[in-house]
Amino acid sequence: MQLSPRQEQIIAIVKRSGPITSQQIAAELNLTRATLRPDLAILTMAGILEARPRVGYFLSSKPSQALVAEEIKKIRVGDIKGLPRVIRAGASVYEAIVSMFLEDVGTLMVVDDEGHLEGVVSRKDLLKAAIGGGDLQKMPVSVIMTRMPNIICTTPDEPVLAAARKIIEHEVDALPVVRPVNGQGKKLKVLGRITKTTITNLFVELGEGRS
Amino acid sequence: MQLSPRQEQIIAIVKRSGPITSQQIAAELNLTRATLRPDLAILTMAGILEARPRVGYFLSSKPSQALVAEEIKKIRVGDIKGLPRVIRAGASVYEAIVSMFLEDVGTLMVVDDEGHLEGVVSRKDLLKAAIGGGDLQKMPVSVIMTRMPNIICTTPDEPVLAAARKIIEHEVDALPVVRPVNGQGKKLKVLGRITKTTITNLFVELGEGRS
Repeated sequence: MQLSPRQEQIIAIVKRSGPITSQQIAAELNLTRATLRPDLAILTMAGILEARPRVGYFLSSKPSQALVAEEIKKIRVGDIKGLPRVIRAGASVYEAIVSMFLEDVGTLMVVDDEGHLEGVVSRKDLLKAAIGGGDLQKMPVSVIMTRMPNIICTTPDEPVLAAARKIIEHEVDALPVVRPVNGQGKKLKVLGRITKTTITNLFVELGEGRS
Repeated sequence: MQLSPRQEQIIAIVKRSGPITSQQIAAELNLTRATLRPDLAILTMAGILEARPRVGYFLSSKPSQALVAEEIKKIRVGDIKGLPRVIRAGASVYEAIVSMFLEDVGTLMVVDDEGHLEGVVSRKDLLKAAIGGGDLQKMPVSVIMTRMPNIICTTPDEPVLAAARKIIEHEVDALPVVRPVNGQGKKLKVLGRITKTTITNLFVELGEGRS
């Protein structure tokens, strides 16, 4: 919302002294009520101020939900995705654990030699394997990973909101960002990842007005 | 922002056919331009539509960042915190792993017999212990946990934005929500937790206009 300097002044006055009548606001600004009327109408319709007869104007407690939702819906996965963190399908569980610590990520994408998605392995999968008692150096990561077609994916064009919803509904920490490989059936190229950390980061940027 | 049904219709038309003149919008809605003028003025001032002479109205590319940031800053930790997931300091690492799987959480708060915070243990801590080769049934969780005063905490009054920033800056998955225990020095009672999942959930709610 693009507020004029005068509208900002009105909000500041109402914040400080509300509930306050339009007459009192006009007096503070050395303006007539008629001059203020359009500004007050806009601020009220925008849901920033509320007016009550015989009481005056006060700051709306109802948040500007629709507008916030509108902004969030515009952001696409491609705008914020992180780099993919991958491991080859032939690697051992032990190698996956080491790579997870070295790269400090919670989820690794498992790929074939051409970089196509074969599976996803989470910290939880690795922890389960680690207390299972097998030889982690000999166990291939492909044994414990979630494999296609059970992997929940996203694409660069998908709204981040839809990706975040997938994370919550499917109770996963991360989604691979993929695109189909031309003329190769169901093969998917891994372009990046969206994680709960990516979303938390985006939340901070939105809250700081940076996104 | 509380939009009227007609304002929603106008946005839909501009989304579909913009840039479009007010005359064309009026024709689509079977209204006069004069009737539409206040709606178009409000949508333009709210930063939702933009108008260019001899071109018409189109959806604004400039996001209403300030308003989104304003809304996000209002949300407090106490509004969205989840239930605390705790384990006693005397429990074994093995018990912590089992409890983590049973409760399906990424971080456990470690408490003394009176429920006061002693430490925090993450999936990463447990994975490190699990590949370390010790006897997990005999190793107390207090050996591997992060302990006070190194735990990053939050309080019910803190804005969620500040809590999310702590999660990102300190690279942790979860923050205990605490309050000091009256007259007991530095002791903290655990009231709940804020995690990357909580933030992702909140993001989805904001995007759906539900928060």
